[in-house]
Amino acid sequence: MQLLRIGAPGSERPAVRTADGTGYELGPLTTDIDGAFLADGGIDRVRAALAEGSLPTLDDPADGSGQRLGAPVASPGKIVCIGLNYRDHAAETGAALPAEPVVFLKTPDTVVGPYDEVLVPRRSVKTDWEVELGVVIGRTARYLDSAEDALACVAGYVLSHDVSEREFQIERGGQWDKGKNCETFNPLGPYLVPADEVPDPQRLGLRLWVNGVLRQDSSTEHMIFGVAEVIRYLSQFMVLRPGDLINTGTPAGVALGQPEPKPYLRAGDVVELEIDGLGRQRQTLGQA
Amino acid sequence: MQLLRIGAPGSERPAVRTADGTGYELGPLTTDIDGAFLADGGIDRVRAALAEGSLPTLDDPADGSGQRLGAPVASPGKIVCIGLNYRDHAAETGAALPAEPVVFLKTPDTVVGPYDEVLVPRRSVKTDWEVELGVVIGRTARYLDSAEDALACVAGYVLSHDVSEREFQIERGGQWDKGKNCETFNPLGPYLVPADEVPDPQRLGLRLWVNGVLRQDSSTEHMIFGVAEVIRYLSQFMVLRPGDLINTGTPAGVALGQPEPKPYLRAGDVVELEIDGLGRQRQTLGQA
Repeated sequence: MQLLRIGAPGSERPAVRTADGTGYELGPLTTDIDGAFLADGGIDRVRAALAEGSLPTLDDPADGSGQRLGAPVASPGKIVCIGLNYRDHAAETGAALPAEPVVFLKTPDTVVGPYDEVLVPRRSVKTDWEVELGVVIGRTARYLDSAEDALACVAGYVLSHDVSEREFQIERGGQWDKGKNCETFNPLGPYLVPADEVPDPQRLGLRLWVNGVLRQDSSTEHMIFGVAEVIRYLSQFMVLRPGDLINTGTPAGVALGQPEPKPYLRAGDVVELEIDGLGRQRQTLGQA
Repeated sequence: MQLLRIGAPGSERPAVRTADGTGYELGPLTTDIDGAFLADGGIDRVRAALAEGSLPTLDDPADGSGQRLGAPVASPGKIVCIGLNYRDHAAETGAALPAEPVVFLKTPDTVVGPYDEVLVPRRSVKTDWEVELGVVIGRTARYLDSAEDALACVAGYVLSHDVSEREFQIERGGQWDKGKNCETFNPLGPYLVPADEVPDPQRLGLRLWVNGVLRQDSSTEHMIFGVAEVIRYLSQFMVLRPGDLINTGTPAGVALGQPEPKPYLRAGDVVELEIDGLGRQRQTLGQA
């Protein structure tokens, strides 16, 4: 089951697509796919409605070829990101392997749809890509004790693009957040897959291409800190709430890790990315 | 004019208090004080309604002695913080003076009311205080050119407490955000003062006491990067939107800057803070 949101920015309508490819409107069930919906048993209610056959069929292929796809979750309350969470990526950036998760933040308004334009910021010369497994929280997480408790807080999984500006992030003083929060820097989607339909979140292939050239090609099995540990760990430092998004880190292959001249993104470039079972994104770069 | 929000957490009602101390309900004018209200000329509409005498008088002193005061702005979209923005604070923490603003983030759900309990996180031994001038955005800011453009984006000013856990922030690997986002870590208020009623945001005394002992006592004139420059600068890296909050940094006097044994906060401690013209907060520390 794929939960998605269709329509123009700010007026997306919730929808669901089943295994046979049929799409249905979720309007009769909820006004949106958000934290309140996920916390309130929304996914179970969608399943019940599908079983009853009570949802109207969608008048759109729900793949971006017709109407626009928005991010599949409306307004995450926060976006928490894990840095250097794949051994090969830590190595390529010259960083030591972290002894515990490295945590930074993106602001919720960086989220755009999976096929929306991504803007190279003004005065940017080091805009970079990062394919990541996104985790959407469905139940409040506060000082969790165990991996089991942590996984029970996951509503579902989503493909997330943690776009990054390396000069802003690393060379402009202080903290990474400065290079992580430019406009359009978090394409999300195309859809949210409920957690119980992802057999093992630590066995998902993830890949990213720039202008057709494969740049990242790895598996979530290579994470240093897996999804359950990331959630348990984060819950010691902050409250995770329904609708929050966690970006779990990126594997090797980003522009920063390439030999000079590093192939940073420019207007006109096309980035495509995918995760097994979580669909595919495609963005054309524009200039802010 | 002081804009404020009164009531239990999550069900605050908007209100205004005038120079003579009289409070009025804003219910007839808006459901809340938020980004949409500020962007849509809300402050001017409050003034017009006060001039007309069309607002019902408030049945509460609106000072926290009756009903609870909430944060005066509902759900900031993001909270952007400036680090090491006072010379004496940079010196006391052993940090070099920043060549350009140091930027980090707090998540919107850290915001609580000005008299609410602040929780010492579990396993925390270095919970610290920071009195700060908060700037609330009223107009979208994107790649601003000048200080004048920047100040035109300010809706108003507010007292903000950037509570910080120094071990989580500095000693646990990576980025400061880990020690800035614990539950209840951003008391805000008691009220929002419109920008045009603050003659000079760079001439405001700010002070903080712990258990009655004066710990911070400075003026916003000692900021390294003033409000206008902070907004202009941030707008090169992210979009600032109506309702967003900027914490502009803290002066010297935090626990981290004291000789050993440093007087970090513990359950039962009482923190009071104030900024000239922006009111006063008081929090009792609890244990998470």
